[in-house]
Amino acid sequence: KNGVNGSDKPHKRVVVFDCRPERDVDATERVLDINGLDFNDFLQFVSKEFAIPSNETFVLTTTDRKGIDLDRYEELQQGNTLHLLQSEDQTLPAATKEHIVFLPHYDTLVQSGMYEYYASEGQKSLPYAFAELIDNALSATSHNTGVRTIDIRLLFDESLGKHAVVIMDNGCGMTSKQLNNWAVYRLSKFSRETGTFSSDHAGYVRPDPVPRSLNSDISYFGVGGKQAVFYIGQSTRMITKPAGSPDVHELIISKEEFERKERNKEDIYSGFIRNRKMGDSSHVSDDEERFLHGLISEEVGKDSFTAVVVTGVQPEHITFLKQDFHLWTRELAHLYHYYIHGLNGNDMKASYRNSDCVSNIDIQISLLEKFPKIPRMVNLREIDNDMQTLYINASADTFEFKACTDNEGTVEGVLRYHPFLYDRETYPEDPYAIQATEEDDEDSIVLNQARGKRPIFECFWNGRLIPYTTVSEFDWCAWPKKTGTVPAECYSRFSGALFTNDRFQVSTNKLTFMDLELQLKNKETLFTRIVNGQEQRVKIQKEFHQWLKTCHEKWDKQVKFRGFKGTIKRTDV
Amino acid sequence: KNGVNGSDKPHKRVVVFDCRPERDVDATERVLDINGLDFNDFLQFVSKEFAIPSNETFVLTTTDRKGIDLDRYEELQQGNTLHLLQSEDQTLPAATKEHIVFLPHYDTLVQSGMYEYYASEGQKSLPYAFAELIDNALSATSHNTGVRTIDIRLLFDESLGKHAVVIMDNGCGMTSKQLNNWAVYRLSKFSRETGTFSSDHAGYVRPDPVPRSLNSDISYFGVGGKQAVFYIGQSTRMITKPAGSPDVHELIISKEEFERKERNKEDIYSGFIRNRKMGDSSHVSDDEERFLHGLISEEVGKDSFTAVVVTGVQPEHITFLKQDFHLWTRELAHLYHYYIHGLNGNDMKASYRNSDCVSNIDIQISLLEKFPKIPRMVNLREIDNDMQTLYINASADTFEFKACTDNEGTVEGVLRYHPFLYDRETYPEDPYAIQATEEDDEDSIVLNQARGKRPIFECFWNGRLIPYTTVSEFDWCAWPKKTGTVPAECYSRFSGALFTNDRFQVSTNKLTFMDLELQLKNKETLFTRIVNGQEQRVKIQKEFHQWLKTCHEKWDKQVKFRGFKGTIKRTDV
Ligand SMILES: Nc1ncnc2c1ncn2[C@@H]1O[C@H](COP(=O)(O)OP(=O)(O)OP(=O)(O)O)[C@@H](O)[C@H]1O
Ligand SMILES: Nc1ncnc2c1ncn2[C@@H]1O[C@H](COP(=O)(O)OP(=O)(O)OP(=O)(O)O)[C@@H](O)[C@H]1O
Ligand SMILES: [Mg+2]
Ligand SMILES: [Mg+2]
Repeated sequence: KNGVNGSDKPHKRVVVFDCRPERDVDATERVLDINGLDFNDFLQFVSKEFAIPSNETFVLTTTDRKGIDLDRYEELQQGNTLHLLQSEDQTLPAATKEHIVFLPHYDTLVQSGMYEYYASEGQKSLPYAFAELIDNALSATSHNTGVRTIDIRLLFDESLGKHAVVIMDNGCGMTSKQLNNWAVYRLSKFSRETGTFSSDHAGYVRPDPVPRSLNSDISYFGVGGKQAVFYIGQSTRMITKPAGSPDVHELIISKEEFERKERNKEDIYSGFIRNRKMGDSSHVSDDEERFLHGLISEEVGKDSFTAVVVTGVQPEHITFLKQDFHLWTRELAHLYHYYIHGLNGNDMKASYRNSDCVSNIDIQISLLEKFPKIPRMVNLREIDNDMQTLYINASADTFEFKACTDNEGTVEGVLRYHPFLYDRETYPEDPYAIQATEEDDEDSIVLNQARGKRPIFECFWNGRLIPYTTVSEFDWCAWPKKTGTVPAECYSRFSGALFTNDRFQVSTNKLTFMDLELQLKNKETLFTRIVNGQEQRVKIQKEFHQWLKTCHEKWDKQVKFRGFKGTIKRTDV
Repeated sequence: KNGVNGSDKPHKRVVVFDCRPERDVDATERVLDINGLDFNDFLQFVSKEFAIPSNETFVLTTTDRKGIDLDRYEELQQGNTLHLLQSEDQTLPAATKEHIVFLPHYDTLVQSGMYEYYASEGQKSLPYAFAELIDNALSATSHNTGVRTIDIRLLFDESLGKHAVVIMDNGCGMTSKQLNNWAVYRLSKFSRETGTFSSDHAGYVRPDPVPRSLNSDISYFGVGGKQAVFYIGQSTRMITKPAGSPDVHELIISKEEFERKERNKEDIYSGFIRNRKMGDSSHVSDDEERFLHGLISEEVGKDSFTAVVVTGVQPEHITFLKQDFHLWTRELAHLYHYYIHGLNGNDMKASYRNSDCVSNIDIQISLLEKFPKIPRMVNLREIDNDMQTLYINASADTFEFKACTDNEGTVEGVLRYHPFLYDRETYPEDPYAIQATEEDDEDSIVLNQARGKRPIFECFWNGRLIPYTTVSEFDWCAWPKKTGTVPAECYSRFSGALFTNDRFQVSTNKLTFMDLELQLKNKETLFTRIVNGQEQRVKIQKEFHQWLKTCHEKWDKQVKFRGFKGTIKRTDV
């Protein structure tokens, strides 16, 4: 082979250290090219190179002290290190330095998401893999002037070839260099070089602060996309076109390719990007991928886009995606609530919609099965039973606040009051939650709590929900120790949301915050109330208490007297 | 450079594709060696190679359509791909294939543990990093005939050089090939080649089933050690000697080295193993590492060992390790309870100790600070306030059971009864738990539960605690729906432990099970009671109920009548 990375004539070089006793301090090292030599030639070559007298015996071993014999000689590989010894068990008079390579195994990519997207008992994990790809699409479309389209298509129609999951966006696309970088595991925006030339090197620029940190800058580690695609399936074709270039770039990474390269002892982390004109699907020869022709023909006329095409989709995933369509699309609507509904969320009562707060982000999901099954489609914005929608629309009043940490961390927060109306609490229940058992019901009645044991706050990072971290309460809004002017049950009538910027750290799978609660409960962290966008320089606890009192008086429509029957205490015997 | 991996004369090859319009279907590709050519030479070379008539204009661009001018020409690198075009914005008549390399970034190793060891609010994370190294030492010592020693030394004595954390074991050690494999991220025991030669290839052999799965086979993913050392510090020196070889092998991986290699455009994932005789510390020249001389001198006479020496220890970690010595050593004693105390755990009442059940695993921890500070030492076996010790010793009776799944998953379980004695429950409290707030206390009184809201089961994987997964209950031992023959409060008087084999999967950081509860609650999973090691072919629920009744009658010493006052219900208005 005489390609761009090969050299001109084949070599098989081994390094031999002279470790025979009573020599100089440093072991003498020779690089010997043994290509074409048989075992005897090799032994003679060694004798000559190290000037070994013909009456002196010697052995050659690996650094693991395996003697080199005829069989093992044949198996020696380029770069192996050998010790020249007087005897196999002789100690080394001086140290030797053995060159090694320790490339990460390809499971780094292939299995990256496998033992990470553990959800509460493996149930809801798939939506969080999709979320990583939506995160990327949100980042990519953040500078779009018009509508930002994120199109998730589940192509489960056998008549079009094998099952595929496609995530397409009309964002900025990637240059071939960026596409190459996409494939580099753990290459984050903080350490990335974006071009070939020094003039291209534009370091990461943190976006300016925006309300509720809805900055679309939802990438951090350089792993999300890879974890996601290998969690969903076994092979991924990235198709992308950056604005201002007529070319489309394509790259495939797949488990099968990795395995093939390993078998053939090829470089594991190398591959080819195909650069081609728009709409050209002439390279798609596999009949199993014929759905690609349609997909590629859609390219024509687009200024820039990215399509992530995942195949080899795990069968359990296909079942889940079909059967639980409502469930996982609702979970995605929940994760991206404020991106798809705008700053104020899905307030269905709002008689007018402030144009600043309306979102231009369309996240569409379509499930296409074989005729005569009818395609299912949903725009996440249409979903009206995600928890944030329920909270917002069951809210009679809100209390906004803000906190800052000393390392530029900002948190905006909102509390929403869900009043008692006539004969019932209006605090929303999760319609899909596992039916509470009898005892649990009893508990919450005993505790007089509409919220029950649920934590108060759901938490958003750069505007995106981090699903497994909740904050149960803060000091200033916790269940009161003593009876006050406000009935205790009012303390269970509010829900809340926190919006942090990325100075608060999340785990690589974006399922949990690292130390949000710890930082917020730090004594240094100061909370201020926000009224009409203005910080109020007053004690938050007092403000909150005042708000709660007002809420109770204004909104709780039938305040029923509840005789306090006293706590039943066990009389210890 | 003419070393073992270099080639004979320097090359700088670029690949040029002829993409001018109206050519043949496939773009013609040429590999051009441009070493030593100036820009003009290069242009002429291209003209000649592609037979471009002198009156025809052409441009050369990168695949990102950046035109190559004098400046950019200088920056071209070996392996770059260029397009030969008629004009910069012309479409590609045919696709080109661009060779790319996408090696994982070194943060794959350096940051591997950073956003994974998130503990409940970042508090207890460090012990879990140590645990990964203890896991490895347990595996390595599993075939020891004598005592298995795992020695954790915190060398925080500035007079001996910089701060270091050392984990040493007297296990099998590693050959240089195994040491090389150690450094390969994600290379698991399932896909590992252990030697250079085909005759060495011994695939992974699953250990035979043993009681409570205490098989010391606590490795799975090929990431634990690397995650742990880079979580603890910035640089690691592995020192190891395999049995049967006189040589010691040493390898350093460090963040600084990775950064240096990146700066110098050297191969990121290559390095050197030092092979040397025992006790030879002549290569330790850095005065900051003078503690190594002592460490290395201890090697002499050992048959095999491994020492993991971590430096660049994060200052917060040093503070935590010193200040919370009791806390984290107790947590380790908890994690490895059954390894250090044997099958039956730390039963301090046992008048005799069955020799089968006594452990030969010594995990010693020593904290060495500068004189006159007194060294602190503890053998984990001496710790008597970890939760398992408390449960075992507060237990009046036990109920053993077993479950098997259809994919060879086995779970052994034990329930322990903690009776009510005269005036109080004996269910152990966690002495270090954050003091329960008043309301919580009230709740558990209301609920009549000694256990409170705590889950019943702690869960062990191959004998090692997986700290963040608990199982709250099973159907057959859950709080009864109706009042039965046994007072309801007895259902809150038992704790439990589950012991699974590795057919149940854990997350890469070994902090959670993936789907233990889901699998166990599967209807196919059958539970059987175990009495004296024998499975009982009877309904578990009935057996359990019988046991509980007996426990209550036999052990609850003062059963107090509690008037049932009825549930206070809100009369809805
Ligand atoms: N749809 C897309 N459009 C444009 N660029 C993309 C797209 N998806 C990924 N990229 C590019 O590829 C890079 C790698 O994506 P990946 O999701 O693997 O990691 P990341 O987003 O950088 O970090 P994280 O681990 O937090 O997701 C992104 O930073 C971005 O530059
Ligand atoms: N103390 C030790 N003694 C001998 N061999 C060791 C030791 N520590 C590590 N090794 C070897 O190095 C390998 C890699 O260790 P590492 O902890 O990184 O991954 P692993 O144990 O294989 O898997 P896991 O990710 O589950 O920990 C081990 O499988 C083992 O072969
Ligand atoms: Mg991402
Ligand atoms: Mg390990």
